[in-house]
Amino acid sequence: MSDTLADRLAAYASVASDLNVDAVALVPGPNFTRTVQHNFMSHERPFVLVIPAQGAAAALVPNLELGSWDLIGFDGAVFDWRDQDGYAAAFDAMMRHLSIKSLGVEGQIMRVFVHHALKAAQPDLTIIDAEREISALRMIKTDADIAAMQAAIDISERALARTFDSVKLGQTEKDIEQVLIQSVFAEGADDLAFAPIVAAGDNSARPHAKARADYKVQSGDALLIDFGVRKDGFCSDITRTVFLVHASDEARAVYDTVLRANLAGLDATRAGVTAHKIDDAATSVLEASPFRDRIRTKTGHGLGREVHEAPYIMRGNHMTLPAGTVYTNEPGLYEIGKFGVRIEDDVLVTEDGYRTLTTFTKELTVLSC
Amino acid sequence: MSDTLADRLAAYASVASDLNVDAVALVPGPNFTRTVQHNFMSHERPFVLVIPAQGAAAALVPNLELGSWDLIGFDGAVFDWRDQDGYAAAFDAMMRHLSIKSLGVEGQIMRVFVHHALKAAQPDLTIIDAEREISALRMIKTDADIAAMQAAIDISERALARTFDSVKLGQTEKDIEQVLIQSVFAEGADDLAFAPIVAAGDNSARPHAKARADYKVQSGDALLIDFGVRKDGFCSDITRTVFLVHASDEARAVYDTVLRANLAGLDATRAGVTAHKIDDAATSVLEASPFRDRIRTKTGHGLGREVHEAPYIMRGNHMTLPAGTVYTNEPGLYEIGKFGVRIEDDVLVTEDGYRTLTTFTKELTVLSC
Repeated sequence: MSDTLADRLAAYASVASDLNVDAVALVPGPNFTRTVQHNFMSHERPFVLVIPAQGAAAALVPNLELGSWDLIGFDGAVFDWRDQDGYAAAFDAMMRHLSIKSLGVEGQIMRVFVHHALKAAQPDLTIIDAEREISALRMIKTDADIAAMQAAIDISERALARTFDSVKLGQTEKDIEQVLIQSVFAEGADDLAFAPIVAAGDNSARPHAKARADYKVQSGDALLIDFGVRKDGFCSDITRTVFLVHASDEARAVYDTVLRANLAGLDATRAGVTAHKIDDAATSVLEASPFRDRIRTKTGHGLGREVHEAPYIMRGNHMTLPAGTVYTNEPGLYEIGKFGVRIEDDVLVTEDGYRTLTTFTKELTVLSC
Repeated sequence: MSDTLADRLAAYASVASDLNVDAVALVPGPNFTRTVQHNFMSHERPFVLVIPAQGAAAALVPNLELGSWDLIGFDGAVFDWRDQDGYAAAFDAMMRHLSIKSLGVEGQIMRVFVHHALKAAQPDLTIIDAEREISALRMIKTDADIAAMQAAIDISERALARTFDSVKLGQTEKDIEQVLIQSVFAEGADDLAFAPIVAAGDNSARPHAKARADYKVQSGDALLIDFGVRKDGFCSDITRTVFLVHASDEARAVYDTVLRANLAGLDATRAGVTAHKIDDAATSVLEASPFRDRIRTKTGHGLGREVHEAPYIMRGNHMTLPAGTVYTNEPGLYEIGKFGVRIEDDVLVTEDGYRTLTTFTKELTVLSC
């Protein structure tokens, strides 16, 4: 299948047509990077690629990026601007050139200052949130995408094994986090995909906990590690929860429940099922347990160039998952003030079922420390 | 000076009053983190803290974050929402509770989907971009802020020394980048502040170049490394450009020009000068040289919890810099297709001048490789 810049731009033009808007806009982020095959930064500088339903694309480019922009082979109009001059005139010129009345944008990525700059240049422009439709183009992963994700996952699993092997009672969560981070880069990661979660004891009950410098891990603690890395533009995202020295009967029962929910979610996975159905399969296991009041999250989210992307695996999301989707299956149970357990796999949807890209053991593990 | 959550909220209430808006809103990012002293993620989940000019603050919090939110000691109203239910009802309830007509937001941080959710809950709400006024509260760094930045800078300089020491002809830019990244974490960084720039030869002429896996560094190349790390929530940002084995006369002349611009910017620095004046001092040196057509960027930007923040050091920005501001002084000259030179220091503005927090040598350096 042909996959040139022109092909990718044409696909966004079709999105605009389908949405009945005159154009869609991309800003630096996962869709932009996928489209131009170059990772641009934006920070305080607006940088916008506009793809009309009909006609050639146009781009508003910070002047200092022109040397990099020249690499991507874009043949549309370019409106560049220098820091010293500001960007208002470039927006004015681009919007006059485009002559559009409506624009679909990436609501989860575009920031308000760009929205305002577009409206300042053209007050009658209708801006709609087309995040779902724009980002849908990267939901089905190519073989190259999956290879990059597998590389990221393999790095993560080697780093996780090194980290668990090194845990000693009396270390702080921060100490363990440092081992994890150094292991991740020693194993070849390009970057962290997000700030790692290394949480023991009561902190493991916070789904997005921060590692504490003042809490030393103790015998009997749950130790939850949730992290991901980037490799060649793609993310991994894995969680494992282990117990230190011993696991109480309650901990074992909670762990078993979460594991059964994870497996039920996997069992429900195949091309053509809805996100709703996978969440329902996993969450129903949690709800049927004595721990149902500890449910705090949906089952998972899509994974790719972003660590959280479509499809969101939750009840009420009746989007069907095509083969090639990768999602996280991460049910958990969290008792605030006590402990939490989460088990997270990265799952590739296939025609006849699924393949878990993560292979790290999910058997209940008690570290001897 | 008292610095409690209540104090910090009161300061934002004053910003709202000064702007003549009914409230300001913060979303996860540097202002939010500074305010609640906890690093929350947002991803696909709206998370908003609203501080009215008069009366108590309110927060819209993803349900799964409640366990972490409980840590921050917030006593305003909390409107939480679960993934399965969506966030529209929580926005409706919060906006009814607040009863405001106008809202200042962080235009560089808030994303369009949150803007749209606010407008959906209250169509007559006027939303203005108050990025400058909101973020101004973190422009003057405290002693603790500066200590964290110095720690980040010290880590960076040790990592940079290790990286330059290891450069060998025939390595790719990617090879050198890997050494840099591993060194950064071995030296104790919490995270990278941004994707590092490791660029040799013609790639050094791209201010935001990506390291290439297929370019091997050669004798005579400029090697530009621009990177930063995070430590305890604060960033470093440093650039040095060296030459491999030998430096041409032109390279030496360009380097000398950039260094004189950097020093002129420093010389112009003291509390009370405008950002304009510092950029003008540095840029005038570049403009007076034979290389004036190679100017592509402003002189620098503020540095703190974000790697690019106010004040932006450019002509036309007549904001005066108070003592305690930290900015990057990073003039450069870039000839597309040939080579670029940039020299970047992190500079603390003081009452009677400045202190460079970066101490890495700026003498022209030729690595023997």
